[in-house]
Amino acid sequence: MGRRNDHSREELRTMAVAAASDIVAAEGLRGLTTRKVAARLGYSPGSLYVIFRNLDDLILHTNAHTLEELRTELGPVASTATTPAATLRALAHGYLEFARNHTNRWLAIFEHRFPEDGDVPDWYRDDIASVMGLVRRPVAQLRGVTDPAAIDLETTAVWGAVHGVVVLGVDAKLDAGGARAPKAVLDTLLTTLCS
Amino acid sequence: MGRRNDHSREELRTMAVAAASDIVAAEGLRGLTTRKVAARLGYSPGSLYVIFRNLDDLILHTNAHTLEELRTELGPVASTATTPAATLRALAHGYLEFARNHTNRWLAIFEHRFPEDGDVPDWYRDDIASVMGLVRRPVAQLRGVTDPAAIDLETTAVWGAVHGVVVLGVDAKLDAGGARAPKAVLDTLLTTLCS
Repeated sequence: MGRRNDHSREELRTMAVAAASDIVAAEGLRGLTTRKVAARLGYSPGSLYVIFRNLDDLILHTNAHTLEELRTELGPVASTATTPAATLRALAHGYLEFARNHTNRWLAIFEHRFPEDGDVPDWYRDDIASVMGLVRRPVAQLRGVTDPAAIDLETTAVWGAVHGVVVLGVDAKLDAGGARAPKAVLDTLLTTLCS
Repeated sequence: MGRRNDHSREELRTMAVAAASDIVAAEGLRGLTTRKVAARLGYSPGSLYVIFRNLDDLILHTNAHTLEELRTELGPVASTATTPAATLRALAHGYLEFARNHTNRWLAIFEHRFPEDGDVPDWYRDDIASVMGLVRRPVAQLRGVTDPAAIDLETTAVWGAVHGVVVLGVDAKLDAGGARAPKAVLDTLLTTLCS
């Protein structure tokens, strides 16, 4: 399988992340192994360890790819709405759509356990911050807060709330109260969050 | 292993649910098998199928047991607070505590996939409704709604929002914005939800 000279390190990384994304989309995060990724690329599993430290590292890069896609989808949404409330509503709807359309890859972001030592790479934190940045601006405007710590808290609260309805909706766990449609529940929540 | 005459059907059900709860607490829902439960009880796996239709049925009963425990913990909380807002805040804190103290069993409620045919037994729906009932009353009062469908929507929105912060908090996924403490995020959310 010694094809390791056919592609540059960067090409191999991109190909591996694409292959891993396909596997996660089809089988969920639990279906992902370096062996499967290597087989798809026609490389030996060992070749991947030249690029990624371990499976955790490959998962982080794969999830970062999903976060980048989410940011690319939500970015225009955030910039076209005219008020902070309209922006948050559009972002929430976009988030629900993304979760529905890419359920396994989206779930993988939350299913992956960070290393016990809490050593999450800065570049991954930056990727998360980049998505959260879309939520920060309208939240800060809406709440009229300027202190960064206060904006953090309010942003995390709004995002966590929307995430809760979306995660229960995608999992069909919202029907306890008879209100099955995630979008209707989301709209009800947004009305409260933006009032 | 022919101990099936030592216990009544009802005793065996109670013992099996207790054993299953212990296994889920220690190993998560994925660690639960009828074989392990039977081994703990000193029965053959086949004996369990006299009581439970299948593993799904055993999981539902085990999750119902967890829901009952949650309701028992949250019930006094809901009845002692003096205002709807204080009640919701106390319920949210109680929910976070329960999720922290019984993480695997609490997660099992959400990890278990209902059967594809959507055939969730009425008794299980009633158990969920019983917990949600604690949230319904203060939400209805706070929002000033009386139409049952509107109360359903508002209740599901509030519960979904709180659940989102709790699930991210328990999973240590709230640190994206630098606001790590679930309780602080929850309090920020509650202030918005109850204003």
